Amino acid sequence: MGEYAYLLYIAIILFSTKILGVFSRKLHMPQVVGALLAGIILGPSVTNLITLQGDVGQFLEDTAEIGVIFLMFSAGLDTDVRELKKNSISAFVVAGIGVLVPVLGGFATYAAIFKPSLANQQELLKAIFIGVVLSATSVSITVETLREMGKLGGKVGTTILGAAVIDDILGIIVLTVVTSLQDTSVKISTVLLKIVLYFVFIGAVFFVCYKCRKQIERFDKRRSVAIMAVVFCLVLSFISEAAFGIADITGAYFAGLILCELKLQPYVNRKTEILSYMFFSPIFFASIGLKTSLSAMSGVILTFSAVLLLVAILSKVLGCGLGARLCGFSGKDALQIGVGMISRGEVALIVAQKGSQCGLLNSNLFGAIVLVVIVTTLITPVLLKMVMRDASNEVNLGKIGKNAAHN
Amino acid sequence: MGEYAYLLYIAIILFSTKILGVFSRKLHMPQVVGALLAGIILGPSVTNLITLQGDVGQFLEDTAEIGVIFLMFSAGLDTDVRELKKNSISAFVVAGIGVLVPVLGGFATYAAIFKPSLANQQELLKAIFIGVVLSATSVSITVETLREMGKLGGKVGTTILGAAVIDDILGIIVLTVVTSLQDTSVKISTVLLKIVLYFVFIGAVFFVCYKCRKQIERFDKRRSVAIMAVVFCLVLSFISEAAFGIADITGAYFAGLILCELKLQPYVNRKTEILSYMFFSPIFFASIGLKTSLSAMSGVILTFSAVLLLVAILSKVLGCGLGARLCGFSGKDALQIGVGMISRGEVALIVAQKGSQCGLLNSNLFGAIVLVVIVTTLITPVLLKMVMRDASNEVNLGKIGKNAAHN
Repeated sequence: MGEYAYLLYIAIILFSTKILGVFSRKLHMPQVVGALLAGIILGPSVTNLITLQGDVGQFLEDTAEIGVIFLMFSAGLDTDVRELKKNSISAFVVAGIGVLVPVLGGFATYAAIFKPSLANQQELLKAIFIGVVLSATSVSITVETLREMGKLGGKVGTTILGAAVIDDILGIIVLTVVTSLQDTSVKISTVLLKIVLYFVFIGAVFFVCYKCRKQIERFDKRRSVAIMAVVFCLVLSFISEAAFGIADITGAYFAGLILCELKLQPYVNRKTEILSYMFFSPIFFASIGLKTSLSAMSGVILTFSAVLLLVAILSKVLGCGLGARLCGFSGKDALQIGVGMISRGEVALIVAQKGSQCGLLNSNLFGAIVLVVIVTTLITPVLLKMVMRDASNEVNLGKIGKNAAHN
Repeated sequence: MGEYAYLLYIAIILFSTKILGVFSRKLHMPQVVGALLAGIILGPSVTNLITLQGDVGQFLEDTAEIGVIFLMFSAGLDTDVRELKKNSISAFVVAGIGVLVPVLGGFATYAAIFKPSLANQQELLKAIFIGVVLSATSVSITVETLREMGKLGGKVGTTILGAAVIDDILGIIVLTVVTSLQDTSVKISTVLLKIVLYFVFIGAVFFVCYKCRKQIERFDKRRSVAIMAVVFCLVLSFISEAAFGIADITGAYFAGLILCELKLQPYVNRKTEILSYMFFSPIFFASIGLKTSLSAMSGVILTFSAVLLLVAILSKVLGCGLGARLCGFSGKDALQIGVGMISRGEVALIVAQKGSQCGLLNSNLFGAIVLVVIVTTLITPVLLKMVMRDASNEVNLGKIGKNAAHN
């Protein structure tokens, strides 16, 4: 095998994600479920055929990162700005309550099952940290599901995307507050200042691109413009991480958002999507499964995992759903928004990793978190399709009713 | 910077290859010249902005390898099989003489300048090895230039491609013979057997795909078929290297050749080309420049480099041109074929690396080889465009003459 093994690994990943994706579609599930399952099957949990260790693993992880960046860039490009403006307050409320409820839920679950002495600051922080991990929504799975169903642009899709981006920012703030209480090298004030500066920076880029849009649009429909759009997306992703400590995918989403009103949008979006589905996004979806290892769990951890899973699902559905209801969404729409925010994915894993680095999460609890991440990630597309399909059936029935009335 | 640096590096590579590519086109040179120059400027020879060391370097090298694989896959897909069959004997003759003349030329150059005692077997092998390095054509640059000019499918393009593939095989045989004389762990008979088995294997895959083409064509024009074609290409590339010791790009070319007569060809080719020009091939072209470091050279090595460069160019033009003339090509066509085979690129670097590993090439000589590789790689597209443009002017003049005669 040697140094060419990665060619084979990529081939296996592309093949199995596609085959299981097609299979999922036959079972009326989103293709992304198949891709996630492919990763779990290839990874340490089942066959251990592909590992993320060593050089090849590093390559796959980097490629996966580019995959999720392109996914979020595409989501930004697909944004309906008028819808986003209309729904920006809802997105804030949904994200806010959608962070608060899981933090409380995770905290309560840990406290109820392990009964730590919460007077001890360290134990208190551990309990809060479980809540923090539960608060991190991973929107990439939802984005892909909505895209497959053609629902990315609507009122519900836009609110979910907006809320997920805000959720990301809130998650970073909460994570920083908790870890800075544990680790004295991180200052809350610095982090908050960086976040403010980040929005100033994004605003400035927005403004410059808006002012220069005539010059940019002169390059319409040439190869160069698509490549330069990818460059723009990568640079913004990098700056977000390196200069502001904000997730690279948030930067990618803003890059898409900045370009989405330009005339070049359809062309750039088509090219980026091909790049994404032909190579990068299958590797990203598989990598989630490859990252997770379900090792043997003890009784109490298993109980904890099961309860935590339930809390993870319910807290997002109820929290985000409540937020949506407060903003005047119908019950159905609120349910869709809540379900769309269930999946935790890589963001929760990153948060959990930070926690275990600074001693807030032992390896048993880490296993529980991984289980929650896998299951929420797998069921989100399935549940989302269920609640969305009901909705579109209703719309169709409504249309039929209308047509009948016309006749 | 840290672990996200590769995002910035990719952005810089995509940006600079595109900008210099457009600039090259403005100067009536192929865009690939700009991409190569971008790599040299970013690399250790000029700014040292991006290195191929460490994790990021490994990622870029792996991505570049996929880039050249997609490039050769695309070249295979673009093949006009009828032309290839018609020109297969010419391709053999061109490749054969095109290997023989540079081997002799390199040997003579080394012998003339360094005056080694050729009675000593070690010294003799060193002299022969310089010849072996000169024999390895790198067709990727030529492929890209021909593609840019829309000349990949014609009689000349097909002969060049066919000859380059055979050249690859001949190069492997010659390299193995020389290194096996130096290193007793490699057996010539094993290598020759592997090469024979490789062609049996490729023939078998060809046969199976031909028999199953109805089943394959049922998937026409769906996303799945394009992804499966990429999987097929990667698997064949991997098997070529891992099981037979044949270059992965040869496998990729055969993968394209096997699929090129199927109805799905235009669809697969379009998707692969987008994947290639949007991301992978710029990284490949830049990586050639990034790999090369032009360090300070002493007087005798500088003389040697200059003479070797001249020999490298002339031996391919004369050798391949002579082969083409013997097969009945016109003088113009023979010149085009010879010029198309000048570039050495990564293949010569790989051969040189093997040589320095087994003690046949010291670091000074390695520097000379690198210089030859860079210059031949840079001038091939320029020269090719010159000799091709003359030809098409002639064709146009011919047409004008015809039109005049018609009136």
